Amino acid sequence: MEPGTARFEAFSDGVFAIAATLLVLEFSAAPGSDLGTELLQLWPSYLAYATSFLTIGIIWMNHNHTVSLLGRTDRTMLFINILLLLTIAFLPFPTKLVAQNLKGDGEQAAALAYAATFVLMAALHLIWWGYARKDRRLIANGTSESALRAVDRAYLPGVLMYGTVFVVAFFSPLAAVIITFAIAAFYLPSAALFDR
Amino acid sequence: MEPGTARFEAFSDGVFAIAATLLVLEFSAAPGSDLGTELLQLWPSYLAYATSFLTIGIIWMNHNHTVSLLGRTDRTMLFINILLLLTIAFLPFPTKLVAQNLKGDGEQAAALAYAATFVLMAALHLIWWGYARKDRRLIANGTSESALRAVDRAYLPGVLMYGTVFVVAFFSPLAAVIITFAIAAFYLPSAALFDR
Amino acid sequence: MEPGTARFEAFSDGVFAIAATLLVLEFSAAPGSDLGTELLQLWPSYLAYATSFLTIGIIWMNHNHTVSLLGRTDRTMLFINILLLLTIAFLPFPTKLVAQNLKGDGEQAAALAYAATFVLMAALHLIWWGYARKDRRLIANGTSESALRAVDRAYLPGVLMYGTVFVVAFFSPLAAVIITFAIAAFYLPSAALFDR
Amino acid sequence: MEPGTARFEAFSDGVFAIAATLLVLEFSAAPGSDLGTELLQLWPSYLAYATSFLTIGIIWMNHNHTVSLLGRTDRTMLFINILLLLTIAFLPFPTKLVAQNLKGDGEQAAALAYAATFVLMAALHLIWWGYARKDRRLIANGTSESALRAVDRAYLPGVLMYGTVFVVAFFSPLAAVIITFAIAAFYLPSAALFDR
Repeated sequence: MEPGTARFEAFSDGVFAIAATLLVLEFSAAPGSDLGTELLQLWPSYLAYATSFLTIGIIWMNHNHTVSLLGRTDRTMLFINILLLLTIAFLPFPTKLVAQNLKGDGEQAAALAYAATFVLMAALHLIWWGYARKDRRLIANGTSESALRAVDRAYLPGVLMYGTVFVVAFFSPLAAVIITFAIAAFYLPSAALFDR
Repeated sequence: MEPGTARFEAFSDGVFAIAATLLVLEFSAAPGSDLGTELLQLWPSYLAYATSFLTIGIIWMNHNHTVSLLGRTDRTMLFINILLLLTIAFLPFPTKLVAQNLKGDGEQAAALAYAATFVLMAALHLIWWGYARKDRRLIANGTSESALRAVDRAYLPGVLMYGTVFVVAFFSPLAAVIITFAIAAFYLPSAALFDR
Repeated sequence: MEPGTARFEAFSDGVFAIAATLLVLEFSAAPGSDLGTELLQLWPSYLAYATSFLTIGIIWMNHNHTVSLLGRTDRTMLFINILLLLTIAFLPFPTKLVAQNLKGDGEQAAALAYAATFVLMAALHLIWWGYARKDRRLIANGTSESALRAVDRAYLPGVLMYGTVFVVAFFSPLAAVIITFAIAAFYLPSAALFDR
Repeated sequence: MEPGTARFEAFSDGVFAIAATLLVLEFSAAPGSDLGTELLQLWPSYLAYATSFLTIGIIWMNHNHTVSLLGRTDRTMLFINILLLLTIAFLPFPTKLVAQNLKGDGEQAAALAYAATFVLMAALHLIWWGYARKDRRLIANGTSESALRAVDRAYLPGVLMYGTVFVVAFFSPLAAVIITFAIAAFYLPSAALFDR
């Protein structure tokens, strides 16, 4: 069976869009006269929300781009893609942990869980790409070798970068989240992937 | 890289539809014999729900219309679009704040947060449009100048209108929400955008 | 402006699918040794879930069918459609009210809110159809008059049926919910709409 | 009326993607210094999440494949499909029950509810397929008999397997969940469906 990529994209787009939009459910504030102060103190929630939303958005962009290089999918690829989506769809939970615990007693555990999720996501994305790219297994005939190498350059550092964030989380949970934000805001959109 | 606009639309449509549908989660009512009275006292929730749902719906219409004028997207445009979607997807939270605090102690803070979200959204939408329109950067060849000017006339007042709502929220939170509703119900659907 | 119906369908499909899937969030059960008993006592939740899910599913079928008869949309039609979707997206709240209050003190208020939502939905669906059908305003050229009359026969009784459910809810909330279920399970799928 | 399968697929894809993504809402952890320990003790939640997500993902793959064998749909098929989606969309609730009760007092009831949902889902999927396949009622002309028999071989054991899981849940709730996971991870992706 060699299905095309149309509904593969539809299901993936759906999970990306829903996971990003569910992030907002992390926010809560008790009604009352102190609401203004409380909203200002929610800054860890805003930081975690922006970081996760941007990351999901940009991984969706990258996913899109690489799917456009494929000419077909197979059963194994669909399975790896489901595993990748499983980690994307999980992201609202560690995002909520960071939102609720940053600058609190549980901040280290929260930042570690957050970073670990990104490590897993980056690793699965690399496996996803490696499977499709090996001997041009699922690559469309018209895709150039230089386009493949551009993706290699963009995907390989992912696991390493998020692994570093994981180590940083042991020393400074806040720094770990800020670096994750910076990766989404500065590194990912300018990744080698698009520099062709 | 100059990707087309197909999956750009799919992801955007997804976030708009999900954000609008998640608004319903703001509602809650304790079971019991006073349920009827409680449902009537939920009027701030109904007002906030209708205001946010209509606004999202009409911004989706406008987004649709302007995307149809584009001939291509680029990396920067995708990034700005993700920022715009980030504010759309955030809307369920300030909507809930208004629903829970209107006519309560926290009503000013809630209305300010609500209006600030709309200001940010309108500003990002203006940047989104300005980027695409500058020197017809991403505009399709077949799009007329008058169609572009119609969008200009519709998008420029947005920041100003929601900025006014923000100021009104200092004096009367309820009036601020009602004006936001009126903008969605009367101004936006009849905007210059469509008057051609 | 006479946009086509493609993204109109995409946004509508999204709201229908999300509203139906959010219904599951009404369910909750406290952990513990009495879980088995508690799950059996949740029967009002199962009834409300099945009723709302089936109704949304079948209204989606009907919406699909009638959109396929259209040749174009206009601004007013998009606005009416947003109002219709606003009531569809609201359904998870009255569904939760029924689930939590049936056979409790608040059951009458819950059933009235539930029925009122369906009355509003049926009325908006009728307005939606009436606007498109008047003088064949938005109807595709190839659509036969008999196809239009079949939709008339299916949509006209909707408001009346749900209005009757509203009246029944004053006397027996449970009966009102069961009749709503029966409409979704027996009447709607066999509606005149499809009997051609 | 013999509608095509396009929006049938769109609505189904939406419900599958949303149900899978809502699973994450089962997770919760109280903020505090014990967060690390608490996150480790959440293993039943991780197991239930992975099991349900994988199962939904693979049932979506199978659903996709079988829809691709169809040439048309009819009203009855749409109705059966809505019932199937009703059970898919319900899955987040029993998943949450398992997550909260495994290794607790309510674990047997939770595992039974979980298994019963899968039995119902498999039975409806079999009815769905049986209806389409009977006398090639909805099968596309180009679909071979061997492709149909491959689906038969894959779908028939479903009810039996999940029925066995239901029986196992009486004796060992944990074993029942692990077998469900194993079915999703090992049996379903390698099912006869694709072995052609």
